[in-house]
Amino acid sequence: MSTRISRCTLLLDHSPSILSWASIVGKKEGEGPLSQYFDLICDDTTLGEETWEKAESGMQKRAVTQALEKAKLAAADLELLFAGDLLNQCISSSYGVRDLNVPFYGLYGACSTMAEGLSLASIFADNQLANLAAAVTSSHFCSAERQFRQPLEYGGQRPPTAQWTVTGSGAAIVTKQGKPPYVRAVTTGIVTDLGIKDINNMGAAMAPAAASTIQTFLKDTNTRPEDYDLILTGDLGIVGSTLLYQLLEKDGIDLAPVHNDCGKMIYYMEEQDVHAGGSGAGCCASVLCSYILPQIQQGALQNVLFVATGALMSTTSFQQGESIPCIAHLVHLSSQPAPPGAQTP
Amino acid sequence: MSTRISRCTLLLDHSPSILSWASIVGKKEGEGPLSQYFDLICDDTTLGEETWEKAESGMQKRAVTQALEKAKLAAADLELLFAGDLLNQCISSSYGVRDLNVPFYGLYGACSTMAEGLSLASIFADNQLANLAAAVTSSHFCSAERQFRQPLEYGGQRPPTAQWTVTGSGAAIVTKQGKPPYVRAVTTGIVTDLGIKDINNMGAAMAPAAASTIQTFLKDTNTRPEDYDLILTGDLGIVGSTLLYQLLEKDGIDLAPVHNDCGKMIYYMEEQDVHAGGSGAGCCASVLCSYILPQIQQGALQNVLFVATGALMSTTSFQQGESIPCIAHLVHLSSQPAPPGAQTP
Repeated sequence: MSTRISRCTLLLDHSPSILSWASIVGKKEGEGPLSQYFDLICDDTTLGEETWEKAESGMQKRAVTQALEKAKLAAADLELLFAGDLLNQCISSSYGVRDLNVPFYGLYGACSTMAEGLSLASIFADNQLANLAAAVTSSHFCSAERQFRQPLEYGGQRPPTAQWTVTGSGAAIVTKQGKPPYVRAVTTGIVTDLGIKDINNMGAAMAPAAASTIQTFLKDTNTRPEDYDLILTGDLGIVGSTLLYQLLEKDGIDLAPVHNDCGKMIYYMEEQDVHAGGSGAGCCASVLCSYILPQIQQGALQNVLFVATGALMSTTSFQQGESIPCIAHLVHLSSQPAPPGAQTP
Repeated sequence: MSTRISRCTLLLDHSPSILSWASIVGKKEGEGPLSQYFDLICDDTTLGEETWEKAESGMQKRAVTQALEKAKLAAADLELLFAGDLLNQCISSSYGVRDLNVPFYGLYGACSTMAEGLSLASIFADNQLANLAAAVTSSHFCSAERQFRQPLEYGGQRPPTAQWTVTGSGAAIVTKQGKPPYVRAVTTGIVTDLGIKDINNMGAAMAPAAASTIQTFLKDTNTRPEDYDLILTGDLGIVGSTLLYQLLEKDGIDLAPVHNDCGKMIYYMEEQDVHAGGSGAGCCASVLCSYILPQIQQGALQNVLFVATGALMSTTSFQQGESIPCIAHLVHLSSQPAPPGAQTP
């Protein structure tokens, strides 16, 4: 059972386990600092498919399949799969899971999808609603660029605040029974929109949502940043991370000492010419499911807040002059389960 | 608590209640046979907004607000809102809920979204994960046509199998405490794709998913169609409904006597020139939240299976020659709660 301690936060009393996970990335991500941690690096980011969209679907399918294989499970063992992505009508997910024959709830949380899916899978596991529930998401530089920005061939110049969409996918399988990493709590985000309209500055648009969700969780659990080894945002990049510190500083919260951002971790920022950092739903999914989860499993990281942010606009809403509504969902991951009867994580 | 009786089906042991609901539709739907049951009919389907997309967002917001008002609740009372829609990046939902300040999980289930959201909200209420959880979705003829098919001004001819996207929204609020209508069980769909590629024949594409989910539920609960007053699909229309009967007939299931389809109910089929019937996520949402739920509340309908189907393709996947993956989620609604200790609904 889970205990609701506020309007946004649920404590997962049985501390479900992330049983298995897998990550797949493209060539550029495979040349970054996390190279050795990914399960698969695709030097050919088409994956042998005719289109980028089919390649991205293939990445989701392979990430789920690989996570299953690592746990010696088959798709038939899964009782629920939560998946979503950035493409129109989330086709990476629906085509990715099409052949898996798995009960499926589709999500749309943009780059927050991994935290949303992991939250729901963990809630289902904690309440014995599913023995095995999985979450998967992805992004692909080529499918995202041509959908959200410009044809790849156009070669438009990118402003310094722009981020580089990660080609990658991450999948995680959650179960109720117990080995680390454990999921101890989740905080559901509230849509936040401070009026940012610049689609080349997603970090700035998303930082207020991250600040809001982190503040909510810390308040709900009566904890402080120093109670965690790592507070890991999804893809705020350099610009968004700095803004996040400034927003929280106003309320006396000093995040910088324990904060990192998947968008800053996945690339060598200067050498790989990614401007403000990585982005995309596959960014935090692939970082979580490669480098982070093993660190928690081994106890090198004991308490991690995984906070993935999503920008919920479309090219249509942008063209119609709308600002960018954003959301951040939080998952508290730990190397230890909650002590029995604990009312704080 | 809920009890999992199969890989796809959960029995909701405490039979959560749909506390309140509301529906909003456009002019054409307001001229149909369900006219008197809708909460609001917008003769101006722009809702005074500059764009169709903003109008559709406005419909979701009003549906939620109206459902809250009918139960004398405020948005601040909601602990979770599940929402999604058909537009790219689900902007009807994210912009619709932007000002509501509600914990939010975004969904993508195309026209199955109402059943997906209602399933999740009900599971949360049944397991005391939320006191009040809501589900909302929408579609708008004008925003859908121009996104999925052709510019409205083009006036292209529609084949007889084509359906008419409903302009409408429906919202429902679920709680654990008890008055009818009750939610007794949910079945999660599995993506089904029999190779249909004609985007002007969604009924044919979606019928196999509906057949699969209905068969799963009947088998899991050891019940037959005649155990229900109504088995209500979302928007199969005339073509899809006929195919559904044929698919189930092969397995000795005679659905026709208890079946209806929201896409056939919402319009006067001949007079309103809607070809194969209504469609869109707002179709079954507005029919459920206007005509159906009060019938269950009053006991005129005692046991209803609400089975919403979704076609999970995009214009990109269509242009790339892909077939249409579909899904159907099922919610068992009843005028009576489950008897204590029941292991079938």
